Amino acid sequence: MSTGTFDLDTAIRKIPNFPKPGVLFYDITSILTNPEAFSFCFNQMKELFRSRQLAGIAAVEARGFIFASPFAYLMNLPLVLIRKQGKLPGKTISRKYALEYGEAEIQLHVDDITHGGTYLLVDDLIATGGTLKASAELIREAGGNVEDIFGVIGLPFLPYESVLDDYAVHTLIQYHSE
Amino acid sequence: MSTGTFDLDTAIRKIPNFPKPGVLFYDITSILTNPEAFSFCFNQMKELFRSRQLAGIAAVEARGFIFASPFAYLMNLPLVLIRKQGKLPGKTISRKYALEYGEAEIQLHVDDITHGGTYLLVDDLIATGGTLKASAELIREAGGNVEDIFGVIGLPFLPYESVLDDYAVHTLIQYHSE
Repeated sequence: MSTGTFDLDTAIRKIPNFPKPGVLFYDITSILTNPEAFSFCFNQMKELFRSRQLAGIAAVEARGFIFASPFAYLMNLPLVLIRKQGKLPGKTISRKYALEYGEAEIQLHVDDITHGGTYLLVDDLIATGGTLKASAELIREAGGNVEDIFGVIGLPFLPYESVLDDYAVHTLIQYHSE
Repeated sequence: MSTGTFDLDTAIRKIPNFPKPGVLFYDITSILTNPEAFSFCFNQMKELFRSRQLAGIAAVEARGFIFASPFAYLMNLPLVLIRKQGKLPGKTISRKYALEYGEAEIQLHVDDITHGGTYLLVDDLIATGGTLKASAELIREAGGNVEDIFGVIGLPFLPYESVLDDYAVHTLIQYHSE
């Protein structure tokens, strides 16, 4: 399948005032129900990362699972989950990070990371970058490396680029205003 | 790759006393970090469902996404998300169902379902069957059909078989006691 010809914007539904008034929500579920659009994303991911020497793919709960899992399968690489607090049953390490209001906590199975291995961190959409920054730090704390972060959609106005400036951030499409 | 020779049990970590004392937790993250085990699951799913005339794959949040998403990609079929309340931005229908303590609510984008189409419902582990029963009912309410339900692991002692007796339930491995 050709990888460069699909207009991904046409497959992304824009929903005003979700999850709160004034916010325009970029909805990836309309990619998922469109097999041409969904395949396009994985073809693009292969183009971006096929030459990397990766130890695994790390997936951020919950929508990150949707893009990380098929890519781990396609690359025949381990899939590592980064989950909200209390979901992982094994030995975990945790990190708290600030949200707009309050804070959140994510966890990683420490034994899922191969020491010295490089992990590609995957989410669906990159906005403030807070969850991804905390996720990358968890992987480093467990002995791994993160060089690249991938999201299907990037919202650089939010602004993730300064938050994630230790990493190469890759997106398939960017939107520049709310 | 051969599909019938992998001993999936060896790839499933058993963790006692999670999420509470007395419960033995069957951990699928040890499948995810084992590419041979992970590929085996999708090969088995292809064997089970390749001859079905499916309109799409329906995924139950959150671990269901991990197995439904690659399978939708492999089958070139739409992926439909069933999510916890408040996560889906479009027009939804909802269903509440009982948990051991209290209740939960799940939602579906009503426009994601093709009228008259048959959907394969996918989760990682089938235990009480409550979430899957509510999910199948949501798909039916939206105009679709569900005939088959798939989970990697089945715990029939809990006992999902009576709860899901309207459906053909498929699992790759069953455990018969806690």
